[in-house]
Order: sequence, then structure tokens, then C-alpha cells
Amino acid sequence: MDLDFVRKLIKPAETKVVMLVIDGLGGLPRESDNLTELEAANTPNLDSLASRGICGLQQPVCTGITPGSGPGHLGIFGYDPVKYQVGRGVLAALGIGFDLLPDDVAARGNFCTIDKNGNVLDRRAGRISTEKNEELCGLLRNIELPDVDVFVETVKEHRLLLVLRGEGLSGGIIDTDPQMVGKKPLQLKPLSSEAEKTVNLVGKFLGQASEILADHYPANMVLLRGFSKKPSWPTFEEAFGLKSAAIAAYPMYRGLAKLLGMNILETGTPIKDEFTTLENNWDDYDFFYLHVKKTDSAGEDGDFNRKIAVIEETDGEIPRLLNLNPDVIIVTGDHSTPSLMKAHSWHPVPVLLYSKYCRVDKVDHFGECACITGGLGSRLPAVDIMLLALANAKRLEKFGA
Amino acid sequence: MDLDFVRKLIKPAETKVVMLVIDGLGGLPRESDNLTELEAANTPNLDSLASRGICGLQQPVCTGITPGSGPGHLGIFGYDPVKYQVGRGVLAALGIGFDLLPDDVAARGNFCTIDKNGNVLDRRAGRISTEKNEELCGLLRNIELPDVDVFVETVKEHRLLLVLRGEGLSGGIIDTDPQMVGKKPLQLKPLSSEAEKTVNLVGKFLGQASEILADHYPANMVLLRGFSKKPSWPTFEEAFGLKSAAIAAYPMYRGLAKLLGMNILETGTPIKDEFTTLENNWDDYDFFYLHVKKTDSAGEDGDFNRKIAVIEETDGEIPRLLNLNPDVIIVTGDHSTPSLMKAHSWHPVPVLLYSKYCRVDKVDHFGECACITGGLGSRLPAVDIMLLALANAKRLEKFGA
Repeated sequence: MDLDFVRKLIKPAETKVVMLVIDGLGGLPRESDNLTELEAANTPNLDSLASRGICGLQQPVCTGITPGSGPGHLGIFGYDPVKYQVGRGVLAALGIGFDLLPDDVAARGNFCTIDKNGNVLDRRAGRISTEKNEELCGLLRNIELPDVDVFVETVKEHRLLLVLRGEGLSGGIIDTDPQMVGKKPLQLKPLSSEAEKTVNLVGKFLGQASEILADHYPANMVLLRGFSKKPSWPTFEEAFGLKSAAIAAYPMYRGLAKLLGMNILETGTPIKDEFTTLENNWDDYDFFYLHVKKTDSAGEDGDFNRKIAVIEETDGEIPRLLNLNPDVIIVTGDHSTPSLMKAHSWHPVPVLLYSKYCRVDKVDHFGECACITGGLGSRLPAVDIMLLALANAKRLEKFGA
Repeated sequence: MDLDFVRKLIKPAETKVVMLVIDGLGGLPRESDNLTELEAANTPNLDSLASRGICGLQQPVCTGITPGSGPGHLGIFGYDPVKYQVGRGVLAALGIGFDLLPDDVAARGNFCTIDKNGNVLDRRAGRISTEKNEELCGLLRNIELPDVDVFVETVKEHRLLLVLRGEGLSGGIIDTDPQMVGKKPLQLKPLSSEAEKTVNLVGKFLGQASEILADHYPANMVLLRGFSKKPSWPTFEEAFGLKSAAIAAYPMYRGLAKLLGMNILETGTPIKDEFTTLENNWDDYDFFYLHVKKTDSAGEDGDFNRKIAVIEETDGEIPRLLNLNPDVIIVTGDHSTPSLMKAHSWHPVPVLLYSKYCRVDKVDHFGECACITGGLGSRLPAVDIMLLALANAKRLEKFGA
């Protein structure tokens, strides 16, 4: 549903909504007992909430599509991830907590290896260490360009972030990364005339980078892609009329929330610290996004039991959430990360909504299989979740007389 | 689904379709036994039909959106309510059975209270009685405007309808209702140059109304909104190839059906009278819309038991419907009206389709919870219902060779 359509129906209320995002929540069953991580976990509090709420499975992007963290979150935040796309450069900045200004142009970079003929030999420079990356980024920071500030930041291993800050810049530039070995880096090209100045500056940067890195084989060059500016989207408050706060320990999620204009609350990494932050800020916001990261990390590591443990740890904090007496509680994930696959996946994500008006279904256990027969259906578009949150929070006018 | 797409597939047939719309059918469970109005009602005939049919839950507009009666009906009639929007003025006319001509401009009006400084003190003039409203509308009917006829009609309490009838009129005018107190009524403004004549005439009307009402505090002025003309949409027969009749006792629903070109049959208010009208006109139409109003009224009043009683009364008439041997029967509502909320709501509405070819599911009781697992799914877009009706009536060609 279009944000403009929703916006016209928003009405003020005193109600509070909590969205608990358990990263990579969905899974696949292990062989021993055919239970997924969530099904195998002992979750008395989530099960009780499920039995008093309405459940289902939701799809952050659409059927069959595996979401990255950005699209996954945008979907459950009510922003159609196909329409609201973030450039790779901007995502890289969000991921390391780099604070982009509206006119900055960001690009995601790779240190790479170039052979004598100028062809790419290794797009990742043998996956150099993060320490080596930091050393090389330090050297690249010596590059000076006319009229703009240059930021070169380490992401991890071979990955870096380039940001140009100045006036009249544009993200409309074709990637230099050829995405395969044995070819030369692609020539810098503007997508339109307004990017010519930026192309010129990036060209100068790459020229100097090539000289600086010449003796640092295998990391003797840089490939750039995803040139982009911070998008100017309706903020979460503009879109949904909710004064919102994000409780997330990791930079990527804080950055995504900030992109939507959410207030970022300081918090600790342990899950219990995040719930303490929720308690301490309860009176000041209408909407809380609370992010649990380590389910996803465990899934990515293929550690079924560790993922169970993080789910159980989260379940243990649910009573603290209930004590705050929120009007609407949503529990879901931004995508599935089955331990079996050691990666994000396309599988629909369990979702649970609790409110006084939610029309309870028969689901009494929060798990993938049980949720199939829930009242929210087995393929709820994630963008509908915010509509349900607003409806249950009595924050939407009737449509038409 | 687009009406143009459907239209190309329409083929003639001798089959008959009945759509029984039980207004505000969906509900929420009461505390004592966790049953909704429909679940608590004793409905042997609807249950039997459910067990021989296919069930589900449908959404008139989309997830989370609470439909007014207009959008709710348009959805189940197959007209996407987001695309086919009716102005407030036109809806007000429909609601009192005022017969709009194609060139008329209608506006919904409020009697209001204006203070000495010209600011709105009360947008509803203390909700004056309907009798007072009728008296004041009588006075306003004395207003004469050049080249156009002026109609001023009582709706209810503080609400009225203004219609200008003449040539060259336009509904493209900004509301004068500021939607809050302490502000002056908004200045009349055309949205485009073609509305200038109309703005001029409405300005004259408001000037004279102000003089006439000056001594009638608290109803000393009129606010206008929703200026609109009757939309020119494809008729129901053009869209679906069905010669259609509406059996509805209340003006709003007769008006809506008329807007779609349905034939309006004279009928009585009791539900059994509506079924008699159905029997008496059985041979003359392909499609019958039969509207039961009092479920919604009971829900709006928060009267759980009265809503049960109306559902049971409706159930008692079902055998008369079956005796006519229709090819397709659809039973649903235009939205939910849970007695618990005393208002329309966003909750999906139970829907039942019976035909010889409907692929029976396992649902054997017509109720919200049971319908979740029905073959029509738990979130069927309402506009799909007419496609299913046509398909089951064998009135659609195969698409493609």
C-alpha cells in the first residue's frame, strides 16, 4: 500500500507500539526431530503471546526473494523495499555508522589485485585482513581533491567505504567493478551530465589510489560500486504519525533506523540491556523498534543450538515488555536465516501481533509450521504489518464514509 | 484485477448469481466463550452452505484499512475502492436517496457555530436536532443563485446536503471546513480554472446563508466539504455482463447500487420482505444484491446479542434462497462491525461461495476462526469475489489459447 494513501488516514492517539525484530528469525527444520530453531526453542512467553494474539508468516520483499538486512527491515517498517532502494554505498556507510550528510556521495569499495596488463586478478585482493585494510585506508586518506572532502573508511577485510563531501555531487555513476576477473576495471562514466563533476573527482581519486597502492600487492588497486546519495524519503513519523525510537546495538540497524528519522537510543549489546533501554525511555515515544542481532549471526554460522539459545534468551525478556503494557506488540524478523543454509533465505518469517483488538486465532505456539494456519496468513506482505500496527493502535481513520 | 481485463473475458450464460451482503458481518470474540457474533449465532443453514461451499476471509480495501460503507460495497462489487473513490458530497446524496444528475455538484455540509471574530467555535453547532436542521434547511432553500437550481437537504442532526444543478459546474473546490475549531472557515478556492464559476456561486450561497442564519445561534453558519460530481464509471452490467438488481431497504445502499447502474427493486425493511422481493423478481435478472442492514446497526450499538439475533433471522431465510436454485451464492459483508468496538473495523470479513463447481474445502461452520483455513484464504482481496462469481457462473472465457 502506498505511503501517501496511508498518510491521509493517520490520526493521533496515545497508544504505544513495540516491534521486536529478531534478526533472521525464520529457519528450517533439523533432521533429528523436524523442528526449526524457533520450534525447538523453549519459548513459554512467546507461545503465550501467540495464543492471545494473531500469527502468520510474512514476506519482507516478495515470494522467493531473499532479503538483505536493508530491504528486510524496510519491508517490516512499511516501506516497499522494491520501491525504496538504498544504494550500496549508502548501505556501507550505514553499516559502519558513518554519518552521511544529504549532499554526500558514498561508494562501496573493494581492495583488489590488478595484474601487469591492468586486468583484475582478484576482486578481493586475497581477502586481506581488516588490520591491513586499516593501514591502507590510512594511506588513501592522504588523497586530496579540489573543493571536496574525502573520507576513506575501513569496513571489513577487503571492503571499504569512500565518501566525497562537497557541493554539486551526484551518485549517477556506473560502477568500476567489472564483477569478474580477467577484465579491466570499467571506465568511470556519468549516467547523466550532472554527474560529470563527480566522475572527474572520482577519476582523480582512483589515479592517486593506483599510485599509492602500487607497492602493496595483492591490494594494489580499488574497485568502486554503488555510488549513491542518502535518499530523501518520508520519515517514519511523516509516514505513520509515530514518534519513534530505535534500540539496536549494531551500526547497520541504527543507521537504517536513522535513515527513516527514528531516534537512536544508546544501549548495550546484551539483549537484557536493550529491554532496559526500552523501560527507561517508555514514556517518550509512540513506537519502539527493538533489534536482536545474534539469532542471525548464529544462523549465518550454521549454529542451530546457539540460535535456539538466543531465541530463548529473548523469550526470557518478554515479561519485561508485557509489564510496560504496550497497546500493540509485533514480534517478527527481517528475514529467515536457517542454520542449515548458513545464510539469509527467502522463507517467510514468523510474525505475531498482539493487541486488545487483534481477533485471536488458534495458534498457540510461535513457530513456522504453527503460523501457517494463523489469521495473518502464510504469506503476509511485510509492508502490511505497519498498517495492522496502526489499525490495532487505533491510529487510522475509516476510509470513506 | 482491472475491470478492462475482466470485460474482455465476459461471455453470456443463463446462470444466476446472488450476493447476500450482511452489513458489518465480521466481529470480535466476547470474553465469556471467545466466540464472535457469527460464531455464537445458531446458523444451521449457513453452516450447511459452508460445508458444501468454499469459505475464507476477505478484505474490502486492504490489510489494516477500515472501510466506510461506500468503499466496502465497491470492493465486493469488484470495483477497487482505492481507484473508484466517491466524493463526500455524492455519498451524502446517496445516503438520503437524493437523485443526482450527471452535471450536479454536491457538497456535504455541517451547520456550525461561528464566534464574533468569525472563527469556528463548534464544527457541529452543538449537534442540533434533526428537526431544527429541517427548519433551517427550509430557510436556506430561499436562497436563489443565477442560472442554477439550489437544493438544500437535511441529512441528520447537524449534517446537510447542498446540491447545485446547472451547466458548467465543477466539483474541483477546496473544502471550507477547517476541520478544527478556533480557525476561520477556509476560503473558497477552485482547484482549477474550470471551477471558478462554481466557486463564485457557492460564495454567493455562503454569503446569503450567513445572513439568514445570523440569528440562529448556535447554528449560525454552514461549513462545506467534499464537493463532487457523480462519477461516470462502467456500470455493473458493462463491467461484468450481468443484468443486476439491488434489494436494499436503506437509501445509502440503494444509492450505491444505482451509481453502478443496478436496477433498484422496491422492498420492505424486514429481512423476509427482501427475500420475497428476490422471489418475485427471480426471472428478470442475472445478479441479485441483497442487503441486510441491521447486523451493522447492532454492532455499532455494541449490542452483541442483537447482532446474533439478526444473523439468526437472516439464516432462517436461507432455505428460501436455496429453493430458487441459484447457480452461485455469495454470502459476506461489506466490512466488520465488532460489537466490542461499536464501529466499523479493519478485520477481514467471512465470505462463503457456493456453486456446483466451487471445490469444497473443510470448513463446515460459517465463522471467523473457521474461515481462516478455508479455500479462499484468510485475506482474499474483495475485488476477487466478482471474478470467482463469474467463473463459477461459467461466464468467463479461458484466457489465452
